[in-house]
Amino acid sequence: MHIPIQSVTPQSGHAEICGWVHEERDLGGLAFFLIRDRTGIIQVTIPKKKVSEEVLLAAKKVSRESVVRIAGTVKAVEKAPGGREIVPDKFEIINLAETPLPLDVSEKVGVELDTRLDARFLDVRRPRVAAVFQIRSAALFAVNEFLHKEGFISITTPKIVAAATEGGTELFPIAYFDKEAFLNQSPQLYKQMMMAGGFEKVYEIGPIFRAEEHNTTKHLNEATSIDIEVSFADHHDVMKTLEHLIVTTYEYVNKTCSTQIANLEIDNFAVPKAPFTRLPYGEAIGIAQKKSGEPIKYGDDISAAAEHAIGDEMGAHYFIVDWPTEIRPYYAMPYEDDPSICKAFDLMHPRMELSSGAQRVHQYDLLVQQIKKKGLNPESFEFYLRPFRYGMPPHAGWGLGAERLIMTMLGLSNVREAVLFPRDMHRLVP
Amino acid sequence: MHIPIQSVTPQSGHAEICGWVHEERDLGGLAFFLIRDRTGIIQVTIPKKKVSEEVLLAAKKVSRESVVRIAGTVKAVEKAPGGREIVPDKFEIINLAETPLPLDVSEKVGVELDTRLDARFLDVRRPRVAAVFQIRSAALFAVNEFLHKEGFISITTPKIVAAATEGGTELFPIAYFDKEAFLNQSPQLYKQMMMAGGFEKVYEIGPIFRAEEHNTTKHLNEATSIDIEVSFADHHDVMKTLEHLIVTTYEYVNKTCSTQIANLEIDNFAVPKAPFTRLPYGEAIGIAQKKSGEPIKYGDDISAAAEHAIGDEMGAHYFIVDWPTEIRPYYAMPYEDDPSICKAFDLMHPRMELSSGAQRVHQYDLLVQQIKKKGLNPESFEFYLRPFRYGMPPHAGWGLGAERLIMTMLGLSNVREAVLFPRDMHRLVP
Repeated sequence: MHIPIQSVTPQSGHAEICGWVHEERDLGGLAFFLIRDRTGIIQVTIPKKKVSEEVLLAAKKVSRESVVRIAGTVKAVEKAPGGREIVPDKFEIINLAETPLPLDVSEKVGVELDTRLDARFLDVRRPRVAAVFQIRSAALFAVNEFLHKEGFISITTPKIVAAATEGGTELFPIAYFDKEAFLNQSPQLYKQMMMAGGFEKVYEIGPIFRAEEHNTTKHLNEATSIDIEVSFADHHDVMKTLEHLIVTTYEYVNKTCSTQIANLEIDNFAVPKAPFTRLPYGEAIGIAQKKSGEPIKYGDDISAAAEHAIGDEMGAHYFIVDWPTEIRPYYAMPYEDDPSICKAFDLMHPRMELSSGAQRVHQYDLLVQQIKKKGLNPESFEFYLRPFRYGMPPHAGWGLGAERLIMTMLGLSNVREAVLFPRDMHRLVP
Repeated sequence: MHIPIQSVTPQSGHAEICGWVHEERDLGGLAFFLIRDRTGIIQVTIPKKKVSEEVLLAAKKVSRESVVRIAGTVKAVEKAPGGREIVPDKFEIINLAETPLPLDVSEKVGVELDTRLDARFLDVRRPRVAAVFQIRSAALFAVNEFLHKEGFISITTPKIVAAATEGGTELFPIAYFDKEAFLNQSPQLYKQMMMAGGFEKVYEIGPIFRAEEHNTTKHLNEATSIDIEVSFADHHDVMKTLEHLIVTTYEYVNKTCSTQIANLEIDNFAVPKAPFTRLPYGEAIGIAQKKSGEPIKYGDDISAAAEHAIGDEMGAHYFIVDWPTEIRPYYAMPYEDDPSICKAFDLMHPRMELSSGAQRVHQYDLLVQQIKKKGLNPESFEFYLRPFRYGMPPHAGWGLGAERLIMTMLGLSNVREAVLFPRDMHRLVP
């Protein structure tokens, strides 16, 4: 039985490993290989005169990135990775890789992102790329565990739907038997319906689909959204849950992914400190006016330039709160004492927005009125509005972009680095 | 601050709760309410002469399934649910429900599934329906935790894809900008590519979409699939992981969901015992020939009738192994010594199939040959085949239907009972 490479120690005696040929070097009488599995790298040294004919033949035939099974004696070698090497008595080529490779895995050459994504299966063999996805897995587990412990019920809402969340045109149409349907932009309406269903605290981690024709380093057309909704809660309550979740997730990654953080060459993995500043929208606009160098006024959306200016000023995670009702979705609850602003918030990383949330409107009449104010037809939302007539509790919630969470946590320059097979206007394969 | 109803005890003194009006009864001088939240039910007793005018008015006005906030003195009452009741000093109607309700929540009347699904937000307020989704949440958490502890990395693969997994016609087409795309039937090809990516042990819990025109109690057009794939593993290895996961999930539900199991009136929640029997396909056919009353021969798919006959005979979870290569997908590995049968398996519950898996073909040439044998064109699978040329390890895996797992665990009669908003040929709303 083979063992993970990271468990091979100078004291292992004899060991069998499986993995990929990361590097090979032939120094005449000696051949060296680095063999890689997902846990680490080990040196295999072949003193040509001392090994069997079979080992020698395989070592000669094998190409980089081939899959091999190697067994042999483990020796302490100070200069080798992990301070040990294997001198093989068995060298089996399980699957020979063709040459040349479409992509260099040993990371000595810079490669364009498009080339990397075309050969993603090779790209993710690079330890620094694999590290991103190992950390993503750990982070999503931490999110699951945190919400589960907080008493949230995980729900699965449909991705094939008959109507848009916000009535927009940013929808992918599907031919659903004889009907027209769409890919859901957000579980928003469904998680609110589960508040009417009495579930009280729900979460979902799932795909969302947006047919936006953008081509930026921050947007994806298929992304993963972490969504919660809580009954008998207001925006303050769910902001607390959100900052607590962010801190817990960073702490979990910090505790369990030190090898991956090292592979990413992150010297100082900083866990954010809660509570995050609550910055009223009006003040955020003030900062942007002073620092962004762009014209922006109260009532405008916050542009990318404004986001950067405010982010520079804040220097840490923060919430923008108290937004103008007019620029938020119909389901955000206006303040009772000043309906021109609402109980909506965005969670911001200094680089970009991570999450949007709000206390929601739970009163049927107010909701219908707000839908109309946005120029939408309440009849298109009948399936969503109906629950509000039969006992909808007050509730609040948010949606958090999983890819942006990972991107900002790890300092990645493009959101496509945080997803295995990104979907954008130009990319549908692999 | 309100507290969950289940935490109100006869010793609570004074308590505030939020919830829905489950039942109301007026006995003249006394009015009784049952108030329900997701944790339980409590009696609220109103001695009309002893409470405030405000409480009296609210109690008179409130309708069933309205959302209320109630505070008052807790008293021990032997005959009340949980042995306690509240005599309120505060009775606030948060959101008044219209009457009549589209669905009776107190479960005294039998209702058609279609009516229930149309008003799902009310249907799930019924404790026995809510219990299904609380157990589903617990079970999926157990699956996540089990796989995470076993060293699996969670992956997210695209749901919008350019090609079918098995070349079939059972695909929903999407207009993806100027391209034609499809909703993915299965993460199969992508999780295999991650084996070429060196991830070694991956899992995904996510939606799958099948445009099959069936209308049965076991099929959904949008479902949740639990998928794993493991490198340097064979079918025996991943069958062990699967039976271990099933047992662990049942154990977790049994340990953490006793209230829900009681709500579902399951008297004897039986945790399956591993190892499950490995029944060769040939023997399964033999049983079906004897007991199903239908003609069936070696080489046939196993029909629903055959499934029942074999399930009755087996009486517990079991695997059907050693299938004819001809009736399994191209990616199932044929036995070296008899390529007419392959290393594929199905995990069966006595009532139905739960999971399909196999050791996969990892050799490029054999895979191309098998794709051709199925009458498919290898060129359509270029993105999938390419990784097999550059170091694909041997690997095995399976996909497990989450809804069928819950359906069989809880003895539900229709798979639609295990999903909040089912999608089938006739149902796209809500």
